[in-house]
Amino acid sequence: MGDRVLSDLFAPSRVAVVGATESEGSIGRAIVTNLRDDFDGETVPVNPNYDEVFGLDCYPDLASAPDVDLAVVVVPPHIAVDVVRGAGETGVENVVVITAGFGETGSEGAARERELQEVAEEYDINLVGPNSLGVMSTPLGLNATFGPENALPGSMSFMSQSGAFITAVLDWANDEGLGFKDVVSLGNKAVLDETDFVRAWGDDPDTDVILAYLEGVEDGGEFISSAREATDDTPIVMVKSGRTDAGAQAVSSHTGTLAGSDRAYEAGLEQAGVLRVDNVQELFDFAQILAGQPLPEKDDVAIVTNAGGPGVMTTDAVGDSTLSLASFSEETLSALSDALPEEANIYNPIDTIGDADIDRFAEAVDVALADENVGCAVVLSAPTAVLGYQELAEVIGELQEKHGKPVAAAMMGGERTEGAKEILRESGIPNYFDPARAVRSLDALATFRDISGREYEEPTRFEVDQERAREILSRAKDRGDNRLGVEAMDLLSAYGIPTPEGAIAETPEDAVSAAQDIEGEVVMKIVSPDILHKSDIGGVKVGVENEDVYDAYEDLVTRARNYQPDATILGVQVQEMVNLDSGTETIIGMNRDPQFGPLLLFGLGGIFVEIIEDTTFRVAPVSEREAEEMVNDIETAPLLRGARGRDPADVGSIVESIQRLSQLVTDFPAILELDVNPLVATPDGVQAIDIRLTVDTDEL
Amino acid sequence: MGDRVLSDLFAPSRVAVVGATESEGSIGRAIVTNLRDDFDGETVPVNPNYDEVFGLDCYPDLASAPDVDLAVVVVPPHIAVDVVRGAGETGVENVVVITAGFGETGSEGAARERELQEVAEEYDINLVGPNSLGVMSTPLGLNATFGPENALPGSMSFMSQSGAFITAVLDWANDEGLGFKDVVSLGNKAVLDETDFVRAWGDDPDTDVILAYLEGVEDGGEFISSAREATDDTPIVMVKSGRTDAGAQAVSSHTGTLAGSDRAYEAGLEQAGVLRVDNVQELFDFAQILAGQPLPEKDDVAIVTNAGGPGVMTTDAVGDSTLSLASFSEETLSALSDALPEEANIYNPIDTIGDADIDRFAEAVDVALADENVGCAVVLSAPTAVLGYQELAEVIGELQEKHGKPVAAAMMGGERTEGAKEILRESGIPNYFDPARAVRSLDALATFRDISGREYEEPTRFEVDQERAREILSRAKDRGDNRLGVEAMDLLSAYGIPTPEGAIAETPEDAVSAAQDIEGEVVMKIVSPDILHKSDIGGVKVGVENEDVYDAYEDLVTRARNYQPDATILGVQVQEMVNLDSGTETIIGMNRDPQFGPLLLFGLGGIFVEIIEDTTFRVAPVSEREAEEMVNDIETAPLLRGARGRDPADVGSIVESIQRLSQLVTDFPAILELDVNPLVATPDGVQAIDIRLTVDTDEL
Repeated sequence: MGDRVLSDLFAPSRVAVVGATESEGSIGRAIVTNLRDDFDGETVPVNPNYDEVFGLDCYPDLASAPDVDLAVVVVPPHIAVDVVRGAGETGVENVVVITAGFGETGSEGAARERELQEVAEEYDINLVGPNSLGVMSTPLGLNATFGPENALPGSMSFMSQSGAFITAVLDWANDEGLGFKDVVSLGNKAVLDETDFVRAWGDDPDTDVILAYLEGVEDGGEFISSAREATDDTPIVMVKSGRTDAGAQAVSSHTGTLAGSDRAYEAGLEQAGVLRVDNVQELFDFAQILAGQPLPEKDDVAIVTNAGGPGVMTTDAVGDSTLSLASFSEETLSALSDALPEEANIYNPIDTIGDADIDRFAEAVDVALADENVGCAVVLSAPTAVLGYQELAEVIGELQEKHGKPVAAAMMGGERTEGAKEILRESGIPNYFDPARAVRSLDALATFRDISGREYEEPTRFEVDQERAREILSRAKDRGDNRLGVEAMDLLSAYGIPTPEGAIAETPEDAVSAAQDIEGEVVMKIVSPDILHKSDIGGVKVGVENEDVYDAYEDLVTRARNYQPDATILGVQVQEMVNLDSGTETIIGMNRDPQFGPLLLFGLGGIFVEIIEDTTFRVAPVSEREAEEMVNDIETAPLLRGARGRDPADVGSIVESIQRLSQLVTDFPAILELDVNPLVATPDGVQAIDIRLTVDTDEL
Repeated sequence: MGDRVLSDLFAPSRVAVVGATESEGSIGRAIVTNLRDDFDGETVPVNPNYDEVFGLDCYPDLASAPDVDLAVVVVPPHIAVDVVRGAGETGVENVVVITAGFGETGSEGAARERELQEVAEEYDINLVGPNSLGVMSTPLGLNATFGPENALPGSMSFMSQSGAFITAVLDWANDEGLGFKDVVSLGNKAVLDETDFVRAWGDDPDTDVILAYLEGVEDGGEFISSAREATDDTPIVMVKSGRTDAGAQAVSSHTGTLAGSDRAYEAGLEQAGVLRVDNVQELFDFAQILAGQPLPEKDDVAIVTNAGGPGVMTTDAVGDSTLSLASFSEETLSALSDALPEEANIYNPIDTIGDADIDRFAEAVDVALADENVGCAVVLSAPTAVLGYQELAEVIGELQEKHGKPVAAAMMGGERTEGAKEILRESGIPNYFDPARAVRSLDALATFRDISGREYEEPTRFEVDQERAREILSRAKDRGDNRLGVEAMDLLSAYGIPTPEGAIAETPEDAVSAAQDIEGEVVMKIVSPDILHKSDIGGVKVGVENEDVYDAYEDLVTRARNYQPDATILGVQVQEMVNLDSGTETIIGMNRDPQFGPLLLFGLGGIFVEIIEDTTFRVAPVSEREAEEMVNDIETAPLLRGARGRDPADVGSIVESIQRLSQLVTDFPAILELDVNPLVATPDGVQAIDIRLTVDTDEL
C-alpha cells in the first residue's frame, strides 16, 4: 500500500452494507443489526431483493444509494469483485470485504483475490479483507462486524489476522472492562495490511497503544520502517504466531502462505521497536499498562507490601526482569522508620506488616514514590482484617497521580478484589493476583521507554567498487552456476572487507608467479564449485614454500580429479599465510528471508556456531549501532574483548565488516546466501579467509 | 523431625484454644469463631480470665480441661513456652503455636525458640509454628487459623511459609471454586517442617497433590529422600522463592535465615522429583490439572478447535513444551474427513471451522481422543453463534471420561465461559483463556508421569582406600592449613580417580629419582599452599628431560622464593607428561551447601566454564544414572561425543569419576570445596591433572 489515508475508514458518516438482509443467522443480518444498534452515522442497506431492511430504505446497488464513505461487502464470492468495482465506480473510498472464498481456498480463490487487488488499485480503494470479520471504531459506535460483541471505548487499537481471536478477546475484554479505539480483522490482507494500520494508528491521537495478532508480515522492510516511526510515541505489542516449527506449519496450512523464518521475525520486530510477546496474557497485560501508566524515568522498582512472603516473590520477579530493586535514600529510610513499627522492614521490599491499616500503608507508598531513586512501584497486598482493598485502590490512584510515576498493583485475592480492581482501572493501574505479572508489565514500560527514546541512525554508505562486484557476480551467471566459492573473494575486497593477499592461478606457472608476489610461505586451495569441503579431500595445503608451489598445484588438481573426475576445476587459490593462532575465528553471513529480505548473521566460528549456536541476527541494512549490537549480543563476546588473557580483537573492524557486508547484500538482491567463514579477528584488524555464496542468476 | 505420626494433627476430636477470648479484633477470638462455625469436633476454650467464651465452657489451663488432641496456642510470647510444656505434661500430642516473637525477632526470640524445640522434643509433640497462621483440614471442617476465609473441600494439600500467602490464596480459590484437603502455615518451622508434611501427605489417601510455598528447606538431604518417596504417586508442586540474588536477600531479611544457593535448590528439587514453578499462576495451574486429570501415556497432543488463529498459538505452545503434536492415524484422518466439511483442517490442529455446532465439534474431539497416537488433548474454542459453551463443556467432560486421556480446555472468552467453567471443573478439567497455559499444564502432567515412573537407583559404592584419604586430609590439619593443592593428588587415586604417575619431591635428588621412575619427559610444578596461580610465577615446567630435573627443581624453588620469600614450600611435583591435545579438558568439583550439603559440578574446562557457564549440578551422593545425566546435561556434551571430527572421549570414565568424587565428598564432610581442574578426557579414559580443595580442619 502506498499513502492512502485511512482515517475515513474508521470515521464514516454513512455506511452501506452490500448484501444486507433480515434472514435469520445470516452475516448480512448480523452486520446491519450491529450497525443499527450503536452507529452514530447512517446505515444504508444494499440488496436488489429488498426495498427495506429492518425499516431502513434498501437500495438495489451502490450506484443508486446515497453517497457512502464505507461499504461493507457480504455478497457471495463470485459477485464480490464486481460489487467492489461498482463501489470504485461510484467513488466509495473504503471497502471491507467480509466475503470468504478467496486466497485461503485454492487456486480459483487466489485468482479472484488478484482481481480484487487490481480493482482496488484501479480505484484507489482502502480495502480490508477479504475473509474479514469486519472493523470497529468506538468513538462513532461503529461496529461493522458480524461478531456477537461490540467493543467498549478505550485507547487501544487492535488488529488481528484471526477473526475468531477478535471475538474471543472482545467477550473477555468486555467482562474485564477493557476498551478499544479501533479494531480491524485483517482477513487475507489483499490490499491493506499491518503496515497500513501501523501508519494510521501511529498518527492517530486517540490511539495510545497498538495491539496486533499476526501470523505473518507482508513486507518486512516496509513494516520495519513504519513501525520504527510509530513507536516514537505509540507502543506496538504483538503476538506473531507460528514461532515454532510446528506453529509455522500450522500457519501455512491455515493461511496458505509460506512463513519466513522466526529468527528473521525476531530480529526484524526488534529492529522495528515492536514489543513481541508469546501469549495472549502478556499481550493484554502490556497493552493495558502502556495505555494507562506513564513511562518510568528509572528502572528502579520500589515494592510496598503488607506481607513478607509475597514480597519475596515480587523481588524474585524483579531479579528475573531488566528492572532492579531501588535503593532508598537516607531521607526515605528515616521517614519509613518514623512511619512504620519496629518489626517492619524499611528496606526494599518495604514490609508494612500484617496489621498495617490504610494510613500506614499509604504513608509507605507515598514516601517510596517520593524517593528520587525510585522509578516505579509495585503495591502488593494480602487480605487482612484491617485493610480495605477499595480504600487502598483509591489511595494508590491518588498517589500515582501525585508522583507521576508508574504503579502496578498486586492486590492478591478473589472476591475481595472486586470493586478495588475497577477503582484501579479508572486510574489506569492494572491489578494482578500474581505479582510476577505486575513486575513484567512495569518491565515492558521501561523497555518501551528505551524504544521510544532511540534515535534512528541511517546505515553508513561506504565507498565501494560496485561495478567490480557486479562483474564478479556475473561470472557465476556466465558459468551457468549459482554457487560461488573462494573465486569470489574479490567481491569482499570490492566492498572493502580485508582479505589476505592472493590470486587464483589457472596453471602451475601462474601459481609460482602468484606465490612470488607474496612474502613468505603460502596457502594453496583447490577452486571448484563442485568441491564444497576442500579439506576433506586434501584440497588445502598450508605453509607451502616457493619452490614447492609448482608441484603442489599439480598435486591439488590430481586429488580433485581423483575425488570427482568430472568436477569443474577453476584453478588453485594461492594465498598469503594468515596466522590463525593470534586471532579469533568469527563468521559473518546472510540469507534472504521471504518477508524481511537480507538477514545478517554474526557469531564466533567452529564449535560456537555449530554446537552452542551462539549467533545473532539483524535485517540489513544495519546502522553502525546495530552492527555493534550484533557483536555485543553473542554470549561469547568476552572472547573478542580479551577474556582469559587473550589479546583483545579489533572489534571496530568486525563492526565495519558487518556494515560493509550489509551494504553488499542490500546492493545486490541477486545474492541469496553468503557466508564469510572464517573472518579472522586479530588485535590489528580482520581478514576474510573463505567465502561461499549462492546467487539468483536471473536477478543479475 | 523423626517419625511422628501427623494424621491426628489434621483429624482431632477435641481442639483447645489456649488464649481464647471474645475480645474484638483479637486472634484468640478469630480462632474460636472459625472453629465454632465449621468444626465437626469439640472446641475447648482455655483462658484463666473467663468461665465461658461464646457460650462454651472455658478452662483456666490445659490440665483442668478435658483431654484434647490438638492445642492451638495464642498466648503472649513470654508464657508460650510454659503453655506448651503444660500441654506436653497433660499428654497433648499436637500443638500449633500461633504466637509470634520467636526466631524472627532477634536473639531473645531465638533463645525462646530453642526452648520451645527442647520442650517439644522432651514431650514428643508435633508442633507447628511458632508464628503460624494455623492449620486447616476440610474433611472435619477444621479451621484452626485466624484467617478470614475457610477452605473449600478438595484433594490438594497446601503448606506455606507465608501466612499472608495462604490468606490471599484462599480468598482467590474460594472465588474460583478450588478446594483443599489440608492447609498448613509453617511459621518458623521450629519443629515440624516441609519434610514432615511431605511424608504425611505422601501417605494420605485423601491428598492427590501437594502444594508448597517455601522460602527455604531445612534439611536438603532429608527433604530429597522423603519427596522422592512421596512423588512415586503424589505430585509436589512448589514455589521456592528467593531464587534470584535480590530475592535471596529479601528472604534473609524476612526470615533471618541464610539462604543456600539457588543452584543447589534447582538440583536438589529436581532430584527430589518436585515440580518447581516460578509463579503463583503455574502453582495452581499445575496443581489443578494434577488433581483432576489422569497422566498421559504419550506426549502427543491433539488440538481440536473452531478457530484457526488460536489453533496456531496453541501449536506454538506445544512447540515450546516437551510435548509434541500428534500425527493422526489413517483411520482418524478418514473419520475426520467424513465428519468435517471440506474447508476444515483434518490434520493437527484440527480446525472444525467457525460454523461448527456441538455435534461436529464433539465428533472431532471423540475421533481425536480415540486415536492411539494421541496421548492428550487441548479443546480450544472461540465464541460463535452456533456453539454453546455449556453444552461443549458437558460433552468434553463425557468424552474425557470415555477415553480416559487427559484434556485441558481453552474456551476463550469472558462472560460466555461462566457456567461452562464450573461444568468443566466438575470433571476435573481446567479451563484457560490463554491456550499456552492449557499446554503447559498438560506438559506438567507428562513430566510428573516421568517422575512417578522413575526408579530410585542407589549410588554405587566403589572399593576405595578411605584410610589413605583420611591420612592425606589430616596433613592439612597437621600443617594448620585449610587449603590443599597438588600435594593432595593422592586423595583422588585413593578413591580410584586416575591421576598421572608422579610424586612430590622435597629435594633435587628426590626429584631426579622420581623422574627416573617415569618414562619420558616430565612436568614439574612448585607445591606451595601460598602460591595459587603456579603458572603466573613460572612455577610450572613442561617437557623436562631427565638430565635437567635437578636444575629445574632448584629453579622452581628460587622463583617461588623470589615471588614470596615467606611462602611455605612443600616441594616440587614431578609428574608424567599428559598429552592434553588428544583430550578434552573437563572440570569436576564440589562445594558444600548449607541446606543440601555436597553439591557436585561438572562442565568442560576453560572458556566453557568461565565465559558461557555451561555447567551442571547435582546433590551428592549421585547414582550412576544421575552422573550420566550430568555429562549429558551440558550444552557442549557433543564435544565429548566426537563432534567436529574429534575422537569421542571415554564418557564412561567421566561418569565413573563423578561417582567416585561423589563418594569421596560424602564420606568426608570435612571437605568444604574441591575442584579437579582439569580432568582430561581422552578416548582411552580420564586423568586428573590438578586439584585444589578446602577442608574444615575441625571436622577431621
